[in-house]
Amino acid sequence: MQKPFGIEQSWLVCIGCGYRTDLLDERKFRCPKCGGLYDIDHNFGLLKKSLYDYIRVFEANVNLSARRSENPAIRSGVWRFKDWVMPFMPDDLIVTLNEGIVPIIRAGKHLQDWVGDVELYIIMEGMTPTGSFKDFGGTVMMSVANAAGIKAVGCASTGDTSAMAAAYAAAAGIQCAVILPKDKVTAVQLAQPLVYGAKIITLPGDFDDCMQVMQELVANYGVYPANSLNPARIEGHQATVFQIAQYFGWQLPEWIAVPVGNGSNCSSVGKAMRLMERLGMERFGLKKISRILGCQSEAANPLGKSWNLAQKDDEVALETWKAKYEPVKVGETAATAARIGNPVSRDKVMREIVHSRGAMEIATEHDLSEAVSICGKDGHFVCPQTGIALAGVRNAVKKRLIEKEEKVVVVSTATGLKFTETAAAHLKHNIISANDCKTETVAKILQG
Amino acid sequence: MQKPFGIEQSWLVCIGCGYRTDLLDERKFRCPKCGGLYDIDHNFGLLKKSLYDYIRVFEANVNLSARRSENPAIRSGVWRFKDWVMPFMPDDLIVTLNEGIVPIIRAGKHLQDWVGDVELYIIMEGMTPTGSFKDFGGTVMMSVANAAGIKAVGCASTGDTSAMAAAYAAAAGIQCAVILPKDKVTAVQLAQPLVYGAKIITLPGDFDDCMQVMQELVANYGVYPANSLNPARIEGHQATVFQIAQYFGWQLPEWIAVPVGNGSNCSSVGKAMRLMERLGMERFGLKKISRILGCQSEAANPLGKSWNLAQKDDEVALETWKAKYEPVKVGETAATAARIGNPVSRDKVMREIVHSRGAMEIATEHDLSEAVSICGKDGHFVCPQTGIALAGVRNAVKKRLIEKEEKVVVVSTATGLKFTETAAAHLKHNIISANDCKTETVAKILQG
Repeated sequence: MQKPFGIEQSWLVCIGCGYRTDLLDERKFRCPKCGGLYDIDHNFGLLKKSLYDYIRVFEANVNLSARRSENPAIRSGVWRFKDWVMPFMPDDLIVTLNEGIVPIIRAGKHLQDWVGDVELYIIMEGMTPTGSFKDFGGTVMMSVANAAGIKAVGCASTGDTSAMAAAYAAAAGIQCAVILPKDKVTAVQLAQPLVYGAKIITLPGDFDDCMQVMQELVANYGVYPANSLNPARIEGHQATVFQIAQYFGWQLPEWIAVPVGNGSNCSSVGKAMRLMERLGMERFGLKKISRILGCQSEAANPLGKSWNLAQKDDEVALETWKAKYEPVKVGETAATAARIGNPVSRDKVMREIVHSRGAMEIATEHDLSEAVSICGKDGHFVCPQTGIALAGVRNAVKKRLIEKEEKVVVVSTATGLKFTETAAAHLKHNIISANDCKTETVAKILQG
Repeated sequence: MQKPFGIEQSWLVCIGCGYRTDLLDERKFRCPKCGGLYDIDHNFGLLKKSLYDYIRVFEANVNLSARRSENPAIRSGVWRFKDWVMPFMPDDLIVTLNEGIVPIIRAGKHLQDWVGDVELYIIMEGMTPTGSFKDFGGTVMMSVANAAGIKAVGCASTGDTSAMAAAYAAAAGIQCAVILPKDKVTAVQLAQPLVYGAKIITLPGDFDDCMQVMQELVANYGVYPANSLNPARIEGHQATVFQIAQYFGWQLPEWIAVPVGNGSNCSSVGKAMRLMERLGMERFGLKKISRILGCQSEAANPLGKSWNLAQKDDEVALETWKAKYEPVKVGETAATAARIGNPVSRDKVMREIVHSRGAMEIATEHDLSEAVSICGKDGHFVCPQTGIALAGVRNAVKKRLIEKEEKVVVVSTATGLKFTETAAAHLKHNIISANDCKTETVAKILQG
């Protein structure tokens, strides 16, 4: 089939050596010259749009959002920003599940008291089709796969990535392979890929065997990788920042705080803000970009630990950080989705944190679980990874890194409904047993 | 405290005998004269608004929906329609979790093929703060409780109602009591009320004991009922219809299909459409109201069964239906949230189905589970109750009750993430075991 767009419109560029290649021809997403990660870039000049033109379209898309439309820019909170996300993608190749129209909420009373004296917001990215932020990237990744004529995508994941990959592959009519170790994953953990009709294959080995097989499927059998290496995911996830900017009238808050697992949150937030700088958004009123607060748990803190080691006079130079970085052996944590000892996108994370004058914070296991409970008391059920980011913000407020009355937006990465077991285990002592079935007894307990 | 509004603005009216009473003074929600259910009604004349005024505000609220605002009409997809939902509620008493901005999607390829030749849409009401449609009603119920100065709400529920009640009570700063039989409910089932900080009390008895205690708490201890009896929930859930109407340019589809458990879906859809008739929406372009298709599973079909018995020459008269109605003993079903043998709101359901020239359909257990799997193949993970409604539509299409190319909107009542166990049990045979860890083996399985 004829390619819908080529290297003149959108291309891959290695963040290590600058090597360029065609987005729609790429299948492996590692630079053949230096092994580096790819960024995607676009020839925005071809669009011949002023900043006013972009913003006018983004605002108009909101106005139409409650109306019936086949236009992905109306139906999706990601494609609403198509010009900045994947501008040359033909509408009829877009694979969307109407994702990404999520609320940005002001922190409730309990959370605000817990975090301290800042103006705190949360973007609720669990309110997506598959229940996690991955859908923001998934819709763009699967559209690129669709445009590239891909027949099968794959991943070796038990969590949000396999759910996302399976759902969008289903929507695209593309096969999805999920490779997992036999007897180490429950059917309930696999409920989403099962429902979405993915081909789930278990191996008589461990997780490393699965990763190895997946890499070889990508290298030799034409399976398209749905993991964090795939930079099309980052393009879509930039919509988080564009939504935050739109929310604040095309300004950005002083801080955006994210949990860091493989690093796609930091990568996309940073990339989106650099795009806004590059397009000259300061002429359109943007005063400055947000500082990125990357947050990790004590159990899996390779970037947080090396950040601390690289500190000198309260500053961290990129080269020093890179030199201090090393993978860690992960420990146990409730925040299983961020339990990663050697993040795939670490180079992008370091680049974006430093560029944005951001910082890393490490959350204790106690604090990240407490954050989930505190959010609950305001009526919000967030995942433990969101807890990492909230606890990180609290640390940063305590040490006055985040100053009084600065605005902070926390990216809530998944719904708590994916973590009911953890939440129940943590709180079941709160269930009260009555000794009898008398109403009076129950009434006394309620008044007590 | 002074009441923010009184019986001259909004009131309760018994659907049995017409008895009127004050909404904010009521605590039990059963007519003292005849035991009937209450409707809420409002003095719309006091608003002095034309139809144009209403619609202009509803549209303007959409335009502002991506902007920061403390106005509940901007933040919530329910309060967006405040004038039609609870017009005299002061904004500062509204309890909202930014609920109800949910997508209406066109059915995917697999579902469309399965259901047959109609224009099928789904409103995805699982994409709400607590993961079910109950939030649409919960925000209004808890706002009324807040305006009435309520100190404690309660319910005896393991499911969506306790999750909703606990979340909105948390947001309101009101105590929430959940009464349950000891050792019959797992902590995981209670994860949401636990996280939202509800007071969960288990009794050494069965579910009937819990219901009994709850009724006495309501009758004698000032506990406000959060269950389906509370008509404020119906007011909020009307927003489903207003969103559907807005989606179609202030027209309604030929059919709206809902699962029927206690009957709040039918009740609210019907009430909303009668309001649109009463306000003269036909002058504003509304051609006709939708016919309501109420759908039940074989395991819990008191309304479906009596509907069939009451059929005469393809017509059902309200009085005949009522005469044929009797409670049923429920059987086993995957659709546990609609496993109700004697629906609380049955009188409202019968009224609305008959008024809208609607019908009842009964879904087999096989079909409702198949519907969930079929939705999955399009990338959507819906709950088994949604499966009931989809299977009901399919039945109605087969028998030409729903005619070719009519528009049907199905209300999807909860996210499938609340039913991972059921889904996994149903589909785990699809997991494929490889005999070794060779990539070649896996590649063969994928190609097979």
